[in-house]
Amino acid sequence: MSSLFKQLEAADEGMRVDLEAILSEIKFNADGLVPAIAQSAHSGEVLMLAWMNIDALRETLQTGRVCYFSRSRNTLWRKGETSGHTQSLTSLRIDCDGDTILLEVEQAGPACHTNRQSCFYLQVEGNMVEVRTGA
Amino acid sequence: MSSLFKQLEAADEGMRVDLEAILSEIKFNADGLVPAIAQSAHSGEVLMLAWMNIDALRETLQTGRVCYFSRSRNTLWRKGETSGHTQSLTSLRIDCDGDTILLEVEQAGPACHTNRQSCFYLQVEGNMVEVRTGA
Repeated sequence: MSSLFKQLEAADEGMRVDLEAILSEIKFNADGLVPAIAQSAHSGEVLMLAWMNIDALRETLQTGRVCYFSRSRNTLWRKGETSGHTQSLTSLRIDCDGDTILLEVEQAGPACHTNRQSCFYLQVEGNMVEVRTGA
Repeated sequence: MSSLFKQLEAADEGMRVDLEAILSEIKFNADGLVPAIAQSAHSGEVLMLAWMNIDALRETLQTGRVCYFSRSRNTLWRKGETSGHTQSLTSLRIDCDGDTILLEVEQAGPACHTNRQSCFYLQVEGNMVEVRTGA
């Protein structure tokens, strides 16, 4: 674990450190990516998980519009750029060991490419999996 | 995208398929892992993200106690086995393209190894990052 994240483990509530120092220690994987979870600011529902590289993360923070990195297209993916289903950032959190991002977002339209509100619509029920869109 | 997940994209609410068929098509990464998000069944708070291999996923479903795969220790990690801060599974969902798991859990004690409720306690505030445990 990097020393800055390690130092912050015991930090008091409200302690602040430079964003740049944190960004420089985020633990991107071998492909230069970290997982980013998008959660609805409105309902708390977990909408999706996608990936960010440092450029996507910086752009998201600078513009307030969520930008991921598309592993299939190998390029920045400004969420909603074709569908219109954009995500407006309301808060961005980093986890204790600096390898996951949590985005709180205002989601325009459905988050999922299937036009469901959330990507997590396959629920295990005993020995079966059921399509269940949610509440 | 695998054909089963692709087929389910347009499936009606309530449609069911065999769990084993789904498990056989989950898209584990090159290390045999998928990210698993743990969300509190009580508050909806996102608590942590960890990783599962097929054995961890099967054990979690069979026992109802959440089991991850520890990348640092390279072994199954039964959450709470040393801390007592176990996670009891209330639902398990898989996302649209079969490469992420969403766990709804009853969390005993804090989820984070720092004894904070959630691992996501580092919140970006402008050019700073602030330690903020949450509501």
